[in-house]
Amino acid sequence: MPDASPLRWHLAHTTWFFETFLLKEILSSYEPWNPHFEVLFNSYYNSVGEQFPRANRGLLTRPSVQEIFEYRHKIDEIILQLIKTESLHHDALRILEIGLQHEQQHQELMLTDLKHMFSCNPLFPIYRTQKSVNQNWNSPERKWIAHEEGLYEIGARQREFCYDNELPRHRQFVESFSLSNRLVTNAEYLVFIEEGGYRRPEFWLSMGWQAVESQKWSSPLYWHQTDDGWSQFTLSGLRSIDGQEPVTHVSYFEADAYARWAGCRLPEEAEWEIAAEDSVDKYPELIVQGNYVESEKYHPQICSNEGAGSAYQQLFGDVWEWTRSQYSAYPGYHTPEGAIGEYNGKFMCNQFVLRGGSCATSASHIRSSYRNFFPPETRWQFSGIRLAK
Amino acid sequence: MPDASPLRWHLAHTTWFFETFLLKEILSSYEPWNPHFEVLFNSYYNSVGEQFPRANRGLLTRPSVQEIFEYRHKIDEIILQLIKTESLHHDALRILEIGLQHEQQHQELMLTDLKHMFSCNPLFPIYRTQKSVNQNWNSPERKWIAHEEGLYEIGARQREFCYDNELPRHRQFVESFSLSNRLVTNAEYLVFIEEGGYRRPEFWLSMGWQAVESQKWSSPLYWHQTDDGWSQFTLSGLRSIDGQEPVTHVSYFEADAYARWAGCRLPEEAEWEIAAEDSVDKYPELIVQGNYVESEKYHPQICSNEGAGSAYQQLFGDVWEWTRSQYSAYPGYHTPEGAIGEYNGKFMCNQFVLRGGSCATSASHIRSSYRNFFPPETRWQFSGIRLAK
Amino acid sequence: MPDASPLRWHLAHTTWFFETFLLKEILSSYEPWNPHFEVLFNSYYNSVGEQFPRANRGLLTRPSVQEIFEYRHKIDEIILQLIKTESLHHDALRILEIGLQHEQQHQELMLTDLKHMFSCNPLFPIYRTQKSVNQNWNSPERKWIAHEEGLYEIGARQREFCYDNELPRHRQFVESFSLSNRLVTNAEYLVFIEEGGYRRPEFWLSMGWQAVESQKWSSPLYWHQTDDGWSQFTLSGLRSIDGQEPVTHVSYFEADAYARWAGCRLPEEAEWEIAAEDSVDKYPELIVQGNYVESEKYHPQICSNEGAGSAYQQLFGDVWEWTRSQYSAYPGYHTPEGAIGEYNGKFMCNQFVLRGGSCATSASHIRSSYRNFFPPETRWQFSGIRLAK
Amino acid sequence: MPDASPLRWHLAHTTWFFETFLLKEILSSYEPWNPHFEVLFNSYYNSVGEQFPRANRGLLTRPSVQEIFEYRHKIDEIILQLIKTESLHHDALRILEIGLQHEQQHQELMLTDLKHMFSCNPLFPIYRTQKSVNQNWNSPERKWIAHEEGLYEIGARQREFCYDNELPRHRQFVESFSLSNRLVTNAEYLVFIEEGGYRRPEFWLSMGWQAVESQKWSSPLYWHQTDDGWSQFTLSGLRSIDGQEPVTHVSYFEADAYARWAGCRLPEEAEWEIAAEDSVDKYPELIVQGNYVESEKYHPQICSNEGAGSAYQQLFGDVWEWTRSQYSAYPGYHTPEGAIGEYNGKFMCNQFVLRGGSCATSASHIRSSYRNFFPPETRWQFSGIRLAK
Repeated sequence: MPDASPLRWHLAHTTWFFETFLLKEILSSYEPWNPHFEVLFNSYYNSVGEQFPRANRGLLTRPSVQEIFEYRHKIDEIILQLIKTESLHHDALRILEIGLQHEQQHQELMLTDLKHMFSCNPLFPIYRTQKSVNQNWNSPERKWIAHEEGLYEIGARQREFCYDNELPRHRQFVESFSLSNRLVTNAEYLVFIEEGGYRRPEFWLSMGWQAVESQKWSSPLYWHQTDDGWSQFTLSGLRSIDGQEPVTHVSYFEADAYARWAGCRLPEEAEWEIAAEDSVDKYPELIVQGNYVESEKYHPQICSNEGAGSAYQQLFGDVWEWTRSQYSAYPGYHTPEGAIGEYNGKFMCNQFVLRGGSCATSASHIRSSYRNFFPPETRWQFSGIRLAK
Repeated sequence: MPDASPLRWHLAHTTWFFETFLLKEILSSYEPWNPHFEVLFNSYYNSVGEQFPRANRGLLTRPSVQEIFEYRHKIDEIILQLIKTESLHHDALRILEIGLQHEQQHQELMLTDLKHMFSCNPLFPIYRTQKSVNQNWNSPERKWIAHEEGLYEIGARQREFCYDNELPRHRQFVESFSLSNRLVTNAEYLVFIEEGGYRRPEFWLSMGWQAVESQKWSSPLYWHQTDDGWSQFTLSGLRSIDGQEPVTHVSYFEADAYARWAGCRLPEEAEWEIAAEDSVDKYPELIVQGNYVESEKYHPQICSNEGAGSAYQQLFGDVWEWTRSQYSAYPGYHTPEGAIGEYNGKFMCNQFVLRGGSCATSASHIRSSYRNFFPPETRWQFSGIRLAK
Repeated sequence: MPDASPLRWHLAHTTWFFETFLLKEILSSYEPWNPHFEVLFNSYYNSVGEQFPRANRGLLTRPSVQEIFEYRHKIDEIILQLIKTESLHHDALRILEIGLQHEQQHQELMLTDLKHMFSCNPLFPIYRTQKSVNQNWNSPERKWIAHEEGLYEIGARQREFCYDNELPRHRQFVESFSLSNRLVTNAEYLVFIEEGGYRRPEFWLSMGWQAVESQKWSSPLYWHQTDDGWSQFTLSGLRSIDGQEPVTHVSYFEADAYARWAGCRLPEEAEWEIAAEDSVDKYPELIVQGNYVESEKYHPQICSNEGAGSAYQQLFGDVWEWTRSQYSAYPGYHTPEGAIGEYNGKFMCNQFVLRGGSCATSASHIRSSYRNFFPPETRWQFSGIRLAK
Repeated sequence: MPDASPLRWHLAHTTWFFETFLLKEILSSYEPWNPHFEVLFNSYYNSVGEQFPRANRGLLTRPSVQEIFEYRHKIDEIILQLIKTESLHHDALRILEIGLQHEQQHQELMLTDLKHMFSCNPLFPIYRTQKSVNQNWNSPERKWIAHEEGLYEIGARQREFCYDNELPRHRQFVESFSLSNRLVTNAEYLVFIEEGGYRRPEFWLSMGWQAVESQKWSSPLYWHQTDDGWSQFTLSGLRSIDGQEPVTHVSYFEADAYARWAGCRLPEEAEWEIAAEDSVDKYPELIVQGNYVESEKYHPQICSNEGAGSAYQQLFGDVWEWTRSQYSAYPGYHTPEGAIGEYNGKFMCNQFVLRGGSCATSASHIRSSYRNFFPPETRWQFSGIRLAK
């Protein structure tokens, strides 16, 4: 899978990020730990220099995992010392913060990449044994929550850390809309499958239908149809599909086709953000109560119908929610100066925005204005569906 | 080139469109001219049935050109008869109109496909000999034309024919912006080339840079560097680059990189439409005065600085203008019922909007709300650049 | 199909061969007809210069067919003049002869390329209408004709024209062997299909099985299974399979798998040549009586059991017979000097030898020592099977 | 590199071979160690069943190396017990012997696969540190050793183990020929490079020239040109080219082009075997004195000019010697019954024979009649050149 990297590479790359953008920048006499690492663990920063080909990362049996941990400890030590001695001025602290956020993103990728690799192994290895993964309750009924038309403000308020692509906060006129109170469940998605969803081109975007045909999609990623019905591969091994759980590991194409089949559509990212900001304003504890990586469940949960009092369920955590918004610059957006400018802006093409974080995201990483983005055929992230109309 | 089709295929496909969506629909006892044509000349309508593979169209030496003209004449006759006898009700007239607009689109493609095919031939065949293609005047100075922020209406007013994707007319809040009065010229683009534009990744989207590297782009399509300087292949053969002409045959990636290099950006499609609607309101003759296919120049012209009194030059005709807007549905957009619904909506993914028509467009085909769209790597259309800021 | 070229290209290339290797070589002041043709119609002669990419030949709509015929007539005229005035010395006559033989090879390719192109067209165009293509008799019973072990001489005797790859005539020790008196028929091949020949890897070479799986082979090329049984596309259109005809359009992989399934093997090329030379020595009229292109049947015929008295049927004409010999140099083989040396020797790799000519070969082109060669996956030639043991 | 596998896969596959072909065959109640292993570690045996895709072997992080060693020890124990109790009848002993020979082949592949993987790592990891790899002497002068024409016997005499493809011993008529007493050296090969060998198509087979152009070959695999001249990657790291060493890591295409440039040719495999058998008859210690994997040098050595008294140097060990013989069946060859029949016969297509073993081969694995075979573009084996004429 060309999008995935080995765990050892993630471990080294996140430290490389601190070494390259922080230590090399602010310590005038800094000697790189290993000059080869500059190439080996550069993901896509052209301004830093050449990059080791992504597809060959799996061949890098050296440096060993132990050497990579030494590298991590050494760089961490230097940075901790800089923090203790208060040697980091404002710009450096900004880089440090980005580096920490960046590492959180890679922590999420480590889980999703590992899941993908394990899924290719007919032994279906188990990453974490879970006793009873799911509760025995039912998902609540779907309700539509209405929002009025108006000129809204969108984008980060900058009360906390945010990425460049969440800025500037700006006005956007939005027509009246309604979002579903909860995510689409496996049981609902199964009806789509059973009614020929994957065989009827009328529900699909043209490129989506090409993906169905060329990649022979007939269900979400990791689903297996056996004599005993549908099961899915999870980080706790192969288990039966639980109809009440949110559907996950669907591409934008599948989310969009499902919505069209259901007579609805996917939300605009502005609509999602308006709903989320409104909910968080009323129930500030909404974000922290989500199902994130810290729960160590590594799988979306059945909607508990508690949701901190909010009318919306599972806006944060569980699964990333595909929006119908193609990822592009907000009006007035400026790419930051320097190599850090390659972080977000250069991907504003052929990607769709996802919102809300997943069961593999860190709790402290997510917020209402957070914009994740992936190409529309992407399925290996914990991505799901909330309907709009 | 997978996007291009042979001329004979265009000739048959446009007639197939009338036969399939008009005659088969309204004439209950209609017998198809040739049942095989249903597959052979179906471009992408899944609801109509199977399609002959696009990449193999070049292998179709039968039906012969003469047989295709017979097919065209026969179907045309039936339709003319239906028109004369006033047998076409409202919906059928709508299909007839779409069929005519559809044929205009293919007339444009016939020129651009032919140009591409000729360009692959080292003989550089000439489609139309031109005496003096260009005038000896200079492009006017660039001026920035300012527009105020506000809640604007965008989309077709439906006073004339429009496609589904131009609807519904709707409100959009737009920040204040300025557009250049004229298009980017070859001379200006050459400075970008000479300053290393194609060798410096900092100006490019990530996917754009991949295209530069994998396809070895170093100038617009059809440009050739010889000992005597730059020349370009046109439908009138190979000629020297005229620095005053608008640059054309650039991809979105190149337009976007040029704009970034120039310290500007590309327009949003709403911004372009606001500027165009405003200009047309003031100078209604603006549209008809453009350089279209009817001029039989088949090449963009030097800006004449006359422009019917408008401050904007060459908004219509000459070259399609890339916008930074990814092609997506307007709020409230509904796909039409039936096969005709496959016309526009299913391509709303990984394409960028272009506005204004080109020297290969029919004069009666274009309007302020017209949305053309192509993938960002597309270069074989007459596509150019207008800057925004 | 990357191996096939348009007819107009064959027409120009064969004349290019005479112009390049004959006129340019012997006429000191010769001015090329069109300098571009040197590139456009060069098939693979690196020593002559650059070549227009094979895959793009289909895009060459210029020069027109009429211009190509003018080119042919002009070059022919010059050569006829040279012949009349007896200006061609020995080496030039040798090139002239090779040019004529080369044109015969392209005449065969024109038929097989045309057949392939027509086969891709769902209209199944007819090249030549035939009244009753086949006779109503049965193929004779298979008999095994035995040959003793011994030290034989192989290769051209040079009593007539031959290619470099048939030389030198040399000794080869051959074990005792038997060849089938006749070719494998469609009826016999159908048993192989019905007994799962295309589903059982044990009969196939490893690369052959990969071809079966990746290209989804389940019958010879041009066979179609319909509700009425098997039919095959011919240059006279689609017709039912005649069980008594020799099977054709099979790859080496299929011929080899069939032979293994039948408990036999394919002949060595030396074995085939020994059998053919022996037959021709006894029945010199054997070669001229074959079914060649001159019969204008363009399809292999049912074995007539007449064969000029020879025990072997259809050794010459009808179908090329796959041998199990990989194409390589005879001991003492020398590549000729100059560009003409690129004719045969540089293909001695990953190809198998076929013997005996086909229904698309010119009668005057074939002989016992003639070595044709194609990669083992090739199916678009009239290639068939004679068994050995 | 699609031809290479991870070391852990080789470790498990060689034990899988014993389990599958020996234990499952002879122990009626044998329970497989792990039913998944049947698929995971099946290389290409269709008769055994499905195979895990070769390209995905690198993704198999489970079973762990420790689990694979447990698997190996367990299966070894059972086999040792069977040997001790003399429970293996004749056929089973034959399988046991093939399994051991098979493991020797994989031991060689483990080194060449590891070398390739390390070579992709810019750290150039060292597998085994060597003090002074090479001696300071010169390669002897080239001499041509003549052999007379005659009817020779070729193939295994069956005094020791041999593979099916070395049988039957049979007669072959061979013209008089001469072989070089020693291998082509790096210094000699450098002259070829410097005289434009990789830029002149006249030396290359057509497919070879395609490989040069598409893969941008300009030297043997693992060679690097730096400011200090040429160096090569070895299992002991990057070192300067030693001109006196035999050239290695060349494809058949390169060996063939070099020979043509040198005005010679490569040997036929029969010629090589005649020379080798003759030498071994005179100097029986010739084989054991070669430079094999047991020397732990993992690199070909400078020719010592001692060679046990034989006129030929380095016939055995150091580098596999490309022959111009395409790999095919000897007259009278029969594929063995059962799955073991898939071992050699099914690869008789598009491969060339190599002879004599290399510095990565086990000393007890090689013999005069041994036929190794690889596709002509293969370079990651220790393959070199001996000239013939």
